Amino acid sequence: MAIRPASKTLPVEKIILGIDPGTVVFGYGIIKQQGQKITAIQMGVVKLDKFKSHEIRLARIFEKVTMLIEEFLPDEMAIESPFYGKNIQIALKLGRAQGVSMAAAIARQIPIVEYAPKKIKQSVTGNGNASKEQVAAMVVRLLEIKAENYLLDATDALAVAITHVNQGGREQEVSGGWDKFLKENASRIKS
Amino acid sequence: MAIRPASKTLPVEKIILGIDPGTVVFGYGIIKQQGQKITAIQMGVVKLDKFKSHEIRLARIFEKVTMLIEEFLPDEMAIESPFYGKNIQIALKLGRAQGVSMAAAIARQIPIVEYAPKKIKQSVTGNGNASKEQVAAMVVRLLEIKAENYLLDATDALAVAITHVNQGGREQEVSGGWDKFLKENASRIKS
Repeated sequence: MAIRPASKTLPVEKIILGIDPGTVVFGYGIIKQQGQKITAIQMGVVKLDKFKSHEIRLARIFEKVTMLIEEFLPDEMAIESPFYGKNIQIALKLGRAQGVSMAAAIARQIPIVEYAPKKIKQSVTGNGNASKEQVAAMVVRLLEIKAENYLLDATDALAVAITHVNQGGREQEVSGGWDKFLKENASRIKS
Repeated sequence: MAIRPASKTLPVEKIILGIDPGTVVFGYGIIKQQGQKITAIQMGVVKLDKFKSHEIRLARIFEKVTMLIEEFLPDEMAIESPFYGKNIQIALKLGRAQGVSMAAAIARQIPIVEYAPKKIKQSVTGNGNASKEQVAAMVVRLLEIKAENYLLDATDALAVAITHVNQGGREQEVSGGWDKFLKENASRIKS
């Protein structure tokens, strides 16, 4: 019996978990990539302001990311990353929120890729200075979903995941941080 | 057969994991508290500068804290916490290092208590402005251990654990952060 030669390359099939870990609202979105096609699998937000303790907020984020990973078995995690604010204490808290999210992925050997907010806006809307609402409108159109206003943090998380797909996934990993990536890829950056 | 009444209250016996999570060196120290007596069980540092990728550094911290928890089964974790620097990117990275450390404790339901650097210095040496070397010298004396210079980050971690014991452990938990604690306990702060 002859072995049938592969008639064509199988399309890439991947599950991407996008997260937008704030200290007040944690947003998440999961998409499935099949070749050029992307579909939304899940999206949501966790409101953290009801928890007064910073430690309990971190615990909720860690548990949520862990649950999402266990339920949807993502191949990669994409995270909205650098911070351009000026408040040290906010940066520290945001870093912690990112840290616990990343730990949930690290614990399960899921690669993490970071994208700067400007890169995400550029990738999804074609404009690096797009508003949150413009990003949401494009995400809703691209994924053919309905999203209420209160889910803006979830559409942000979906936007990170979409950016990851647009960038070619894991190969474009920004392991040295966005600054390093910018320096190394100056000729490839549009904006 | 009569049940023998307890002749005296049993002394508190606890294992405390102290950590000093930097982004270049991660220090840890484990102490055992038996009533008024404290003894060092383990101390060490993980040098992270050999890893260029920030993500790999975070993974190493998470794995180390997880391993320490699994090996020594601490009852509580004490962490040196707020950050007084001015660099936003450093604060964000430090926040991430703290976040992954805290996630390792959260994953195993170990309570986390934070202490400000000044509080630790005050608690261990009696002087809130003591140098790293003065803190190390006192830690070495209190615990009757030998520590080489390169273990300064480990003595810092032991100092956090000692502070936790001095403060009465879990009851003094600073769940709303140091600022909140300061406001609520203004009359109890010495320095």
